[in-house]
Amino acid sequence: MLVYGAMAYREMTENRLGSYLATLPDIAARLGSRPQLWQIRKIATSELSAVFVAEGPAGEVCIKQAVPCTLDLGGQWPLPLERTVFEEAALTLYARFASGLVPRVLHYDSEQSLLILERLHPHITLRRGMIKAGVYPRFAEQIGKFLGETLFRTSDLAMAAAEKKERVAFFCANAEIGRLAEYLAFTEPYLDAPENRWTTPELDDLARAIRQDDALKRAVSALKQSFMAGPQALIHGNLHTGSVLVTETDTKVIDPVCAFFGPIGFDLGTLIGHLLIGYFSQRGHAPSHAPRSPYERWLADTVQQVWHRFHDRFLDLWRSAHAGDAYPDALFTGASGAESLRTAQKEYMRRIFEDALRFAGATIVRAILGRRHVADFEQIDDRRHRAACERPALLLARELIKDAHYVGDIAEVMEVARELREGTMPAG
Amino acid sequence: MLVYGAMAYREMTENRLGSYLATLPDIAARLGSRPQLWQIRKIATSELSAVFVAEGPAGEVCIKQAVPCTLDLGGQWPLPLERTVFEEAALTLYARFASGLVPRVLHYDSEQSLLILERLHPHITLRRGMIKAGVYPRFAEQIGKFLGETLFRTSDLAMAAAEKKERVAFFCANAEIGRLAEYLAFTEPYLDAPENRWTTPELDDLARAIRQDDALKRAVSALKQSFMAGPQALIHGNLHTGSVLVTETDTKVIDPVCAFFGPIGFDLGTLIGHLLIGYFSQRGHAPSHAPRSPYERWLADTVQQVWHRFHDRFLDLWRSAHAGDAYPDALFTGASGAESLRTAQKEYMRRIFEDALRFAGATIVRAILGRRHVADFEQIDDRRHRAACERPALLLARELIKDAHYVGDIAEVMEVARELREGTMPAG
Repeated sequence: MLVYGAMAYREMTENRLGSYLATLPDIAARLGSRPQLWQIRKIATSELSAVFVAEGPAGEVCIKQAVPCTLDLGGQWPLPLERTVFEEAALTLYARFASGLVPRVLHYDSEQSLLILERLHPHITLRRGMIKAGVYPRFAEQIGKFLGETLFRTSDLAMAAAEKKERVAFFCANAEIGRLAEYLAFTEPYLDAPENRWTTPELDDLARAIRQDDALKRAVSALKQSFMAGPQALIHGNLHTGSVLVTETDTKVIDPVCAFFGPIGFDLGTLIGHLLIGYFSQRGHAPSHAPRSPYERWLADTVQQVWHRFHDRFLDLWRSAHAGDAYPDALFTGASGAESLRTAQKEYMRRIFEDALRFAGATIVRAILGRRHVADFEQIDDRRHRAACERPALLLARELIKDAHYVGDIAEVMEVARELREGTMPAG
Repeated sequence: MLVYGAMAYREMTENRLGSYLATLPDIAARLGSRPQLWQIRKIATSELSAVFVAEGPAGEVCIKQAVPCTLDLGGQWPLPLERTVFEEAALTLYARFASGLVPRVLHYDSEQSLLILERLHPHITLRRGMIKAGVYPRFAEQIGKFLGETLFRTSDLAMAAAEKKERVAFFCANAEIGRLAEYLAFTEPYLDAPENRWTTPELDDLARAIRQDDALKRAVSALKQSFMAGPQALIHGNLHTGSVLVTETDTKVIDPVCAFFGPIGFDLGTLIGHLLIGYFSQRGHAPSHAPRSPYERWLADTVQQVWHRFHDRFLDLWRSAHAGDAYPDALFTGASGAESLRTAQKEYMRRIFEDALRFAGATIVRAILGRRHVADFEQIDDRRHRAACERPALLLARELIKDAHYVGDIAEVMEVARELREGTMPAG
């Protein structure tokens, strides 16, 4: 049997993984003590990692290993293998603040850049669920709790200054993957870059208009700057609907490989942007004899619920668990102080709301005009149908990035979304 | 002779320092090779450090050592002795970007938490200079250069992403002194805290009004939050007029013990705030037979020049030395892109301007109502004269913090300052 203790990194195969798991008593016990009965399969590979499932008579686990990866972004961009340490650190903090809403970490091996996680079953990604018109009655409540808890408790409102600065410093080292995100989210989609693609020729006019929109590019640049230097709280950094696993009763957030301290609005905006993508894509998936109007309404309601659940949870915690140095209690005493604090909270949440809308807009632009597209739209085979779904999404996105300041509330966003989708609104 | 190599920390005395310096060949050579001819004197002590000068036949140096320090801020607050590492790191970066505008570091001893620096002579602090109505014709140009260079080149507009994140992480460890600054600048002066003092009874009404001004305290809380989590660039962190040494031809910035990555507007605001303090204090220092109107005009002009020189330098560098990932060139190509970039730069500089005004306001409030006062006002013996200088400064400060958004430009600030000082404006 191979012995893996403190060995240099090797990419795992099913066979190698069997030997490896057998060296870990806790994991072996969890699977059942006879390794020859274990079944190990690779269930996913991406450019960043390989994912395996190991099943034994007594139980099962999920194994995720970072793989060597060099991206070509006009120059070679190697991602350090050590990046798994940030995923582990984020999952550990998440377990502290939102236990039950992330997979449990059962084992972490820094040498092998490998995590062994609780297997989530029968969960599917929310993206896949939305394409199938799946309804998840607990999702908004659970993700709102996740967002409220993790973002509040790692902010200056809750975390002790020394701990926060130490964690900010730690996650600063996740810089390479952060820089990748900055480039792919806030720069490349707005360039005439060869890697970009879109539904052509249907969206050619709009793609060109967006790349020539100077005010939009200025707004995106300001957004990028706030993403680069706005460590409000620990953010997941890539909270799209493929990073959320769901069942009818459960929600789990996975894959915080991009985690770092950034703007609170970013996680919210990424998620809302991808929920909007799901919303706009429905007509492309609905069979003509069975329109999905009720499901569209559920999604529209879900977007609003996600914001409200986050908002209410965050403010509940501000009232009950404020312990950080920001907005010190001593400045808000007495009756007028309490009233003033409510005003301060409104102003604070309003800034997060506007940030979230702008980030949601950038999320949508990137998914339609950038190098990496999403299954929500890509699985619509008919090009004209696809373009008809993407166009109103892009129009909304542009408005969110440029004019978030003028949006009244989240209900108004969904009202505009509906009107754009119905084509009842003059475009842009 | 004592040998100091890798010895545990000891507080230096003149005697001990002589033996210590003799073990450093470069320093000994600089002073002249016969230690018995060196003259060493302690020239300053503060709660944070002791400062010595060593003079020899061949030259002289300045020695600064951190001393054990525990502050009482409603709880004991020990500052780690290792803090000198941040001062050394900041001075080293400053030497790279603003050579000639900071003292040269000749030696750094982490064990002894001690820096040996180029001695600056016959420099005095700008604060002392202003009290004596000293004119410094090169000051605005030189400090504008310092601010423009150090703030631009450590920002996301110039510094490579990996280097910036690494430095942000490094300076995160300067957290204790940062937390002290947060408390003393943005919290305590607004509380009914026993450590606060002010010119009483003359300013009792205004002190009370400020502590009861809810909108002001909300604005200060938002300002504090941006100071805690806004790593735009490496900031000095305490750039008052006692941290600036001047002669008629030279300007040097000293003492960056609070350095960390923070909002660009903070250094500007701290300096402008203390220049305004100098401005408002003049009538208290002027002999009745010799009013200082020309000097007041010079100071008013200097405040404006400081802003303009910084502004112009920063934008010159943005045009000539842009190398960071923020505001990527590729998003601003062609004639319309160039025009758009100018608009983006205007918006960027406007945000810094408003931040600077708010921080300037907080600087003034703190110096008049907080626990630590400044010589500009303190040396005005006549209490009513002092209060007459402090009152318009406080009124301006309150307006800057709450209404920076509505201020047109820096000339308008000085116009309002003049009117408040003349008493021609209805108070707040």
